[in-house]
Amino acid sequence: MAKRSVKIDTKELEAAVEEVVGRMGVIERFGKAADHIEGLADIETDRFGIAVATHDGGMVMGGDAETPFPIQSISKVFALTLALRAFGDDVWKRVGREPSGDPFNSIVDLERHKGKPRNPFINPGAIVVVDMLLDIAAKDETHKTVRDFLAAEIGEEIKVDRTIFDKESSGGFNNRAMANMCKFFGNLNHEVDAVMKPYVSQCAIALTCRQLALAGRYLMDGGEKPLEDESVRARRVNSLMLTCGQYDGSGDFAFRVGLPAKSGVGGGILAIAPGLASIAVWSPGLDENGNSLLGTLALEQLAERMGWSVFG
Amino acid sequence: MAKRSVKIDTKELEAAVEEVVGRMGVIERFGKAADHIEGLADIETDRFGIAVATHDGGMVMGGDAETPFPIQSISKVFALTLALRAFGDDVWKRVGREPSGDPFNSIVDLERHKGKPRNPFINPGAIVVVDMLLDIAAKDETHKTVRDFLAAEIGEEIKVDRTIFDKESSGGFNNRAMANMCKFFGNLNHEVDAVMKPYVSQCAIALTCRQLALAGRYLMDGGEKPLEDESVRARRVNSLMLTCGQYDGSGDFAFRVGLPAKSGVGGGILAIAPGLASIAVWSPGLDENGNSLLGTLALEQLAERMGWSVFG
Amino acid sequence: MAKRSVKIDTKELEAAVEEVVGRMGVIERFGKAADHIEGLADIETDRFGIAVATHDGGMVMGGDAETPFPIQSISKVFALTLALRAFGDDVWKRVGREPSGDPFNSIVDLERHKGKPRNPFINPGAIVVVDMLLDIAAKDETHKTVRDFLAAEIGEEIKVDRTIFDKESSGGFNNRAMANMCKFFGNLNHEVDAVMKPYVSQCAIALTCRQLALAGRYLMDGGEKPLEDESVRARRVNSLMLTCGQYDGSGDFAFRVGLPAKSGVGGGILAIAPGLASIAVWSPGLDENGNSLLGTLALEQLAERMGWSVFG
Amino acid sequence: MAKRSVKIDTKELEAAVEEVVGRMGVIERFGKAADHIEGLADIETDRFGIAVATHDGGMVMGGDAETPFPIQSISKVFALTLALRAFGDDVWKRVGREPSGDPFNSIVDLERHKGKPRNPFINPGAIVVVDMLLDIAAKDETHKTVRDFLAAEIGEEIKVDRTIFDKESSGGFNNRAMANMCKFFGNLNHEVDAVMKPYVSQCAIALTCRQLALAGRYLMDGGEKPLEDESVRARRVNSLMLTCGQYDGSGDFAFRVGLPAKSGVGGGILAIAPGLASIAVWSPGLDENGNSLLGTLALEQLAERMGWSVFG
Repeated sequence: MAKRSVKIDTKELEAAVEEVVGRMGVIERFGKAADHIEGLADIETDRFGIAVATHDGGMVMGGDAETPFPIQSISKVFALTLALRAFGDDVWKRVGREPSGDPFNSIVDLERHKGKPRNPFINPGAIVVVDMLLDIAAKDETHKTVRDFLAAEIGEEIKVDRTIFDKESSGGFNNRAMANMCKFFGNLNHEVDAVMKPYVSQCAIALTCRQLALAGRYLMDGGEKPLEDESVRARRVNSLMLTCGQYDGSGDFAFRVGLPAKSGVGGGILAIAPGLASIAVWSPGLDENGNSLLGTLALEQLAERMGWSVFG
Repeated sequence: MAKRSVKIDTKELEAAVEEVVGRMGVIERFGKAADHIEGLADIETDRFGIAVATHDGGMVMGGDAETPFPIQSISKVFALTLALRAFGDDVWKRVGREPSGDPFNSIVDLERHKGKPRNPFINPGAIVVVDMLLDIAAKDETHKTVRDFLAAEIGEEIKVDRTIFDKESSGGFNNRAMANMCKFFGNLNHEVDAVMKPYVSQCAIALTCRQLALAGRYLMDGGEKPLEDESVRARRVNSLMLTCGQYDGSGDFAFRVGLPAKSGVGGGILAIAPGLASIAVWSPGLDENGNSLLGTLALEQLAERMGWSVFG
Repeated sequence: MAKRSVKIDTKELEAAVEEVVGRMGVIERFGKAADHIEGLADIETDRFGIAVATHDGGMVMGGDAETPFPIQSISKVFALTLALRAFGDDVWKRVGREPSGDPFNSIVDLERHKGKPRNPFINPGAIVVVDMLLDIAAKDETHKTVRDFLAAEIGEEIKVDRTIFDKESSGGFNNRAMANMCKFFGNLNHEVDAVMKPYVSQCAIALTCRQLALAGRYLMDGGEKPLEDESVRARRVNSLMLTCGQYDGSGDFAFRVGLPAKSGVGGGILAIAPGLASIAVWSPGLDENGNSLLGTLALEQLAERMGWSVFG
Repeated sequence: MAKRSVKIDTKELEAAVEEVVGRMGVIERFGKAADHIEGLADIETDRFGIAVATHDGGMVMGGDAETPFPIQSISKVFALTLALRAFGDDVWKRVGREPSGDPFNSIVDLERHKGKPRNPFINPGAIVVVDMLLDIAAKDETHKTVRDFLAAEIGEEIKVDRTIFDKESSGGFNNRAMANMCKFFGNLNHEVDAVMKPYVSQCAIALTCRQLALAGRYLMDGGEKPLEDESVRARRVNSLMLTCGQYDGSGDFAFRVGLPAKSGVGGGILAIAPGLASIAVWSPGLDENGNSLLGTLALEQLAERMGWSVFG
């Protein structure tokens, strides 16, 4: 595992982060905040934050790195991790691991594949993963939710944004359509309402960039004291983030940034430089695929400057 | 670019290759050779070859590493490289760079996206890329075809398998359907027949594992004398190989192997360990996604043993 | 309206019905009862009933014409009629009137057409129609439900099959998926649960062939005392039954039988010979499109024998 | 067959046609002529013609009833008739008889149903029918083409519009895509080019309304001397025209007009009142589904006035 031994030049990283923050500050087009999710639409789209947790325990921050934002779909990474720890490869009996192509295809694919979602990062896939977490909770009362998991990884208390939670709880008809379709095909063990609640709840968890970067450390190196299993698991989650992590912009993100990453419609992105760093960026303006516009640009520049792309 | 300085332990690599070859020799299920491509169906499916060209100029081989096979879709990588050299980012005006999801969706996507294929590694995408190569040839008589490119990279004369070429020339109705659809939407400058000929021809190029590994070296390090442009280009082609290189098994391949790679229905796979190695494997038995069954397994074991996964 | 004056030869009709019943009695393949709807699967599939209400007030019956069965999707015809009476052409702002092609396309079409179902006889279309009936009920407390409508047309009390109702109430996840999709696109004014209840209830209404034939009379001649509006409405409902009434077998049914008709998964079919007769058949064995196998065959033979096809 | 004996009041029909022509003359929105078919786009869209051939041998005309126009897709009706005469029900082994839903679905359906088009009136269906006509021609040198058939039915020499033919021969890439897809699935016996030529040729046949109404007589009564077979065949072709004859506007046309009909992108429509009349209308302005806007309106008014809807 030669790559792990690579040292990060902290000064260079600090300079890179500073430069990226500076560049983001002069950009005048930030995309549009998600308007289909109430409570997100009124945020100032020019805000930007970044935090980099390095393999050697360092933390480099810039911009609004201490402003909390709802992690939304980034929670899918942590939910998947919990499911993999409990069920191992059985997870893949209920959810696939292929990119889903055009968003248009999602419900078609669900129908064609008889309720088995293409991957755990599209909404129906995450809904099935949450259903698995309920299966664990039913058997094991010490079961950790995504919120517990994050609290443990970060070492701080984690909050759910009640405004977001309340607003999303009363809607989400598209997700309910997907959940019912999964249920129709027998791929949901619990009631649709019972699954939607923790699903919406984990999406509404609010983290700062600093906290999110801390939470992603286990993916950069497989845990502080890497066990073999955890290391393999991290590698696999990284592969899914790279192929499926940015909605219908995953190919473009891999092309431009070259790092495994997961975005959320709240404007956050968690990116992993394997063996090197766990990076969190946030800026609420989204591009046409629903990924943070400034966040993606910042990661592109940082990865280029630091030579962190996994593709050479 | 710290990763580039990593040394490969040649002895360890030789041992790993030997072990992989040994393991492949005792496996009794090899998948099925492609029967929809005449001339490929009667090959012995238990054959296996591997060749690894390392960053420091070494070459480690095992099994049937000197048996030629038709590279088929692997040619799409080289065609794309030529198009990128000539047109740069204009390539992406005519072809996308997103995974295409279910194979079922391919012609639907083509219709929905008005003749712009999802990526250059699905057939309609490669057909549009070949159309670009004809555009170059029309202006520049020193233009290199995929065959010329391979001859230069490998330093040997390259042959087209005439049997394969003749048989595929008289069929390919699915590809002709795709080509006509692209033409209908104005995304094909030349006549369908004029494009199909070089398309079929580059698919019928026959290489050995050793030759294919040599041909892929430019992707591991951006050319023998890496220019900045070539290096960026290699990184980008690698990203496309990882997200789109194994048909509908790309996500699974990334999950298991963790290397950018492109497979062909002839049973070959070219995989890149960025900064480290260019690897070619061949075994004609295919899995249900059309990727070499033993080839994928061998790459999985080699990457695991050598710690080459880009995901940590 | 010359066609209306045509007399039916009652003796010929009686002979035809007797002959049809006799033929159905010797057929040995009856299709398969719907197994996805609990409570329907254990019915004897060789049962067959027929009732013909003629324009001149006659009634000719044969076989199990007095056995009640759940009308299921045939209720969609009556619900549509109530919606048309209340909203007129405004109905078509929320639901289309085109055949839907392959059943596979239903949810795709729903997505592409932004929650506007293709026609009122596919499930999402009928769900939207039931939502309209709730709109009426909210404003008009004398509003008639499908059950009230049927009671008035038939002149008898109408029952809902509680077993069917109870069983279908606890499932229907596919329909709930569709309903949520309509709601997502703003094409459902009431809560999904509030709509599903009357939807399931009208499907569970049990009628005999005799009752169903009586209920369909208004479609053969536009009501006992045909008002101009009612006559136009009947003609239009007939056109929808012909193009969309038999799921994905509508074209085949028009080709073989040549009469506007609506089938239900309970094995019933209501067919209309405009100006001549309202015909109900029932046999619980279904063909691969979900239409009564013997019922369709019986209608084909009766229409042929009586020269009732609308196509000459 | 009581309906056949109905007499048409010629004076009433003449008055109705005159009224319809008058109304069409004051309408100011005519739709848009087909611009994707070169040679059609420069026609004056306010032109309108109508011709009604009655069961008793009469002919009532109005407007531009003697102006020739390319029949385009209306030719599919005659091609199907020839195929049915030669192959009977074997035709349905290679082409279905269900409405195709959204035009978007056409190539998807073709893929899903393994090259078997949904019905003979969508382009791939007609292409397969033309392939059948070539099968007949290969065995029987006295074989009649659509042009021969029309010449015999009308009793006049029939011309192909060479401008239309030449222009369409050099394009049609969407149709060629469909044809290649059929060929790929083994549902085309002849070469794509060999099939496209007569396909384009029959579309370019030019008829006047008078001629087209004469050509359709066999569908109103099964031929001048109705043989049993021909009568059944006419009824079946009528059923297909009603469910599938107006592209994605078939349901709407049945709803508004209530007659079996086939439209062409040249602005013509052939409609059949079974047992009563064969009606041809022409006006080159098209609605959003590609059907003649004034032509459809004229048929709606004529059918309403004469009480000809098959739906009562």
